[in-house]
Amino acid sequence: MASLKIPASVPSPAEDSEQLRKAFAVLFVRTRGSNGEFLMSIGRNGNDHHLIFAGWGTNEALVIKVLVHRNAEQRKLIRETYAATFGKDLLKDLEREVSGDFERALLLWTLCPAERDALLVNEATKMLTASNWIIMEIACTRSSHDLFMVRQAYHSRYKRSIEEDVAYHTTGDFRKLLVPLVSSFRYEGDEVNMTLAKSEAKILHEKISDKAYNDEELIRILSTRSKSQLNATLNHYNNQFGNSINKDLKTDPTNEYLTFLRRIIKCLTCPEKYFEKVLRYVIKGLGTDERALTRVVTTRAEVDMERIKEEYQRRNSVPLDRAIAGDTSGDYEKVLLALIGHGDA
Amino acid sequence: MASLKIPASVPSPAEDSEQLRKAFAVLFVRTRGSNGEFLMSIGRNGNDHHLIFAGWGTNEALVIKVLVHRNAEQRKLIRETYAATFGKDLLKDLEREVSGDFERALLLWTLCPAERDALLVNEATKMLTASNWIIMEIACTRSSHDLFMVRQAYHSRYKRSIEEDVAYHTTGDFRKLLVPLVSSFRYEGDEVNMTLAKSEAKILHEKISDKAYNDEELIRILSTRSKSQLNATLNHYNNQFGNSINKDLKTDPTNEYLTFLRRIIKCLTCPEKYFEKVLRYVIKGLGTDERALTRVVTTRAEVDMERIKEEYQRRNSVPLDRAIAGDTSGDYEKVLLALIGHGDA
Repeated sequence: MASLKIPASVPSPAEDSEQLRKAFAVLFVRTRGSNGEFLMSIGRNGNDHHLIFAGWGTNEALVIKVLVHRNAEQRKLIRETYAATFGKDLLKDLEREVSGDFERALLLWTLCPAERDALLVNEATKMLTASNWIIMEIACTRSSHDLFMVRQAYHSRYKRSIEEDVAYHTTGDFRKLLVPLVSSFRYEGDEVNMTLAKSEAKILHEKISDKAYNDEELIRILSTRSKSQLNATLNHYNNQFGNSINKDLKTDPTNEYLTFLRRIIKCLTCPEKYFEKVLRYVIKGLGTDERALTRVVTTRAEVDMERIKEEYQRRNSVPLDRAIAGDTSGDYEKVLLALIGHGDA
Repeated sequence: MASLKIPASVPSPAEDSEQLRKAFAVLFVRTRGSNGEFLMSIGRNGNDHHLIFAGWGTNEALVIKVLVHRNAEQRKLIRETYAATFGKDLLKDLEREVSGDFERALLLWTLCPAERDALLVNEATKMLTASNWIIMEIACTRSSHDLFMVRQAYHSRYKRSIEEDVAYHTTGDFRKLLVPLVSSFRYEGDEVNMTLAKSEAKILHEKISDKAYNDEELIRILSTRSKSQLNATLNHYNNQFGNSINKDLKTDPTNEYLTFLRRIIKCLTCPEKYFEKVLRYVIKGLGTDERALTRVVTTRAEVDMERIKEEYQRRNSVPLDRAIAGDTSGDYEKVLLALIGHGDA
């Protein structure tokens, strides 16, 4: 269940665009410092913009009000209307007007889900932001249809295919898993073949017992079977062999590949638990990993954030909003809290 | 360019359905042998249908006239209208009314391209009709969009994914190639990165020189790069190393895997030449391989059959229609010739 709150009566995209333009315009006029209101100026991003502190919060609040409490379709219309009305790209204007973690959260949020995921995967294939985990997370927690939309968005944006970039920028056993995972188009029905579940649970158990963790058959099962089928297989594994598969994959806690396999299984079978764990580590860690926090909140707010919040509360005895409020501040905190369902829409 | 001929003025789907029903109805009434026209009866398919020879050809001609000279969209409408009007599945009625090679050609043709390819791939994963070649042909000669439509049709029809069945039913080096090929969603633009083309031509040359034909990098390049990019890479290969890649892959003519690699390259870079060769072998062989002939004609008639005909004429000094007419007969011959552009629409 989504955590996003949308007002009962949503303004038209034209009204929303006008509001955003106003929020930016006020900043723009005031930064010139050309009237009596001028109180205090600060330099920003090394250029000669000058901002009035007093005007700052108000406008960002307006941006949050307009952009955050809108669903993907509504944000898309706002971007289109904004471009048609003012001849400018809303994302570029946002980039100019805000900065830091707040900027990244707003930009990621404003993108449609497929574009956002395409961008996240693309970043995850780049040297400085390389991350097998993020590629895997997107490949395993999105629906087949949504993952295909990401692949289409990737074509449009990067003029290459996802599997092409992932295969090129990853290596070894991780590549052997990641390429089929990002290329998969799993069947999404509930039908389960119990005979197959039994035979494949046996295969998985044999391979894991032999420590053949990168075996082709194990990869085939994890990367091609429907989530329902996989669930049946893993339940049978648990019943038949006495341990959950993830327990059997925990023989060496320092082995990164084994951790990766366990996370794949978690993403495929209980994504809300996987995301709870990401948030837990992000928040508990020494310093907060804002990029991860932003990624999870912006990508799940319209999907299953309510379930993630439940899991978080259950596992940490603290509500997620309090944990986030304790670890973040300012407009960044405000946008995250709004996305996880705080305040009025 | 398609070879299919469609009449300048196409009857409505309702008229076409009515014509088909008439064609079947005549057969049906006459098979009962209940009127004075009864001349001669034959048993068919072990059931007690009795057919009048005299009425047979006429009706099949009508079926060909109505179904063969219609494009995919028109055939889809005919099937829908037929089902809505008569409460029956046109494909099932066809199956009952005709038989043999003619039946298979008509059924495959009547399906929409995505359903037809899904069926062909599914057959190719089954024990008795297993064929790595057919799976590869479909994966490599369809556009990215069309291949994705096949994957969707496969979900609907078989309640599993293509990659799931292909991965399950194939083994070894063939599986390593086939799974990424059927899962690919290649970028389709013309943009080419020449630096990459050079570096990947070098990789391919190294792997082939080392006889590392199943190397991961070689598979990655063939299964993920766009067709334009691959073309640039292979051109560079040819210029830089003095041989075409397919010449270098011909070191052992009895090695089935090497033949497979050469065909993949042909399918990806010049499908019309690949299909010409399939037709040449099908027709020249001892006895005709009707399944292959039917597959190529029904799947290419709406795509590039005119180019294939040109290639065939150039390579064999005989027009394809004459070659097909020499190797087939009856209604089967008629449907094939109609599909490759013979006669009036």
